[in-house]
Amino acid sequence: MKTHPSPRTRVRRIPTNAAYDSATLYAIIDDAYVCHIAFTDESGPHCIPTACWREGGHLYIHGSNGSRMLKRLAESEACVTITHVDGLVMARSAFNHSMNYRSAMVYGQFEIVEGDAKRGAMEAFMEQLLPGRQAQVRGGSDKEYAATTVMRIALDEAACKVRAGGPQDDAEDMAIDTWTGVLPLQRVRAAPAPAEGAGETPGYIQQWQGKP
Amino acid sequence: MKTHPSPRTRVRRIPTNAAYDSATLYAIIDDAYVCHIAFTDESGPHCIPTACWREGGHLYIHGSNGSRMLKRLAESEACVTITHVDGLVMARSAFNHSMNYRSAMVYGQFEIVEGDAKRGAMEAFMEQLLPGRQAQVRGGSDKEYAATTVMRIALDEAACKVRAGGPQDDAEDMAIDTWTGVLPLQRVRAAPAPAEGAGETPGYIQQWQGKP
Repeated sequence: MKTHPSPRTRVRRIPTNAAYDSATLYAIIDDAYVCHIAFTDESGPHCIPTACWREGGHLYIHGSNGSRMLKRLAESEACVTITHVDGLVMARSAFNHSMNYRSAMVYGQFEIVEGDAKRGAMEAFMEQLLPGRQAQVRGGSDKEYAATTVMRIALDEAACKVRAGGPQDDAEDMAIDTWTGVLPLQRVRAAPAPAEGAGETPGYIQQWQGKP
Repeated sequence: MKTHPSPRTRVRRIPTNAAYDSATLYAIIDDAYVCHIAFTDESGPHCIPTACWREGGHLYIHGSNGSRMLKRLAESEACVTITHVDGLVMARSAFNHSMNYRSAMVYGQFEIVEGDAKRGAMEAFMEQLLPGRQAQVRGGSDKEYAATTVMRIALDEAACKVRAGGPQDDAEDMAIDTWTGVLPLQRVRAAPAPAEGAGETPGYIQQWQGKP
């Protein structure tokens, strides 16, 4: 990832919340199950959610060969965005209310991943979703791999924006006597719901619940 | 909302998961704190997250008058997308793994909301975030309102896609003995974190924790 922002990724609105380092970017991506991808075709701009994962300096996606988005992404610019909302920030004035969040935007063009790299990427996806799962299921067949497109975008032109902490009140509002602080939002893993006929519960399923 | 999809909103990929009714659309929007907006300018497509709320048949956003996105949205087409990830779906084969989710896409052009309607929209935003809060803080000043742009987009051209329930295994995989089912993900409200000097805790803050 570039240390300095490009004209497209330089954060102008509340630039003190901007971050351009790989550690921040990778942590935001690794905490996400889906990203939103903006691209444009003859009918205008589209914003489509899709599952994503990271390997090294690339973000990966996959889908059916028939996907209009994947076909279009092979030949045009895209912007990939991930956002986590961490809480509501309560201030003394209406307009100083805010949200705590972590967001990442990546610009560039996707490339198609083929051959052994394609299999490796799909296996990495499963391994990252749930370590240990891969060995307990039927792996992809040649036919399934042939019907699936895997793409990746380099994490070179990217910017993050993060807000954390309590409210920033105006000095002239400090005498207002009201509750202020943060109302946190968290994503939690709830109890696994086995399907009818499910086999024995392995450790990686037992350990699901309660993890952040 | 139109009962029938437009060429832009007709879901082609797994169309059995598509929904075009207002009740589904409104429920997905009302469960969201932020949306992602795709739009295009001279530097290409952008995907920007921003807080959103709904009143009747419109989705609202707001921001600084200086926001490049808001300026651009006043004069060009946009696509607004909201996605909730509800769980990971574990199947007997790698490629039948899936996610449960609820997503909504809205196409159209934003319009600027002015005058009394602008104040009404911002008050509705606060009321929907946290009923009761509005009366306990300093309301927006003329200067704050003048520096803020409120925009809305009609929920006319929209489509939802929802996956729920357990895995759909291929018939030939049913003899594979492995755990199958759903690993749910939930957004929860965690314990309020008061700022230094916070006033008394009102009922709407006490009731925050634990609500879905």
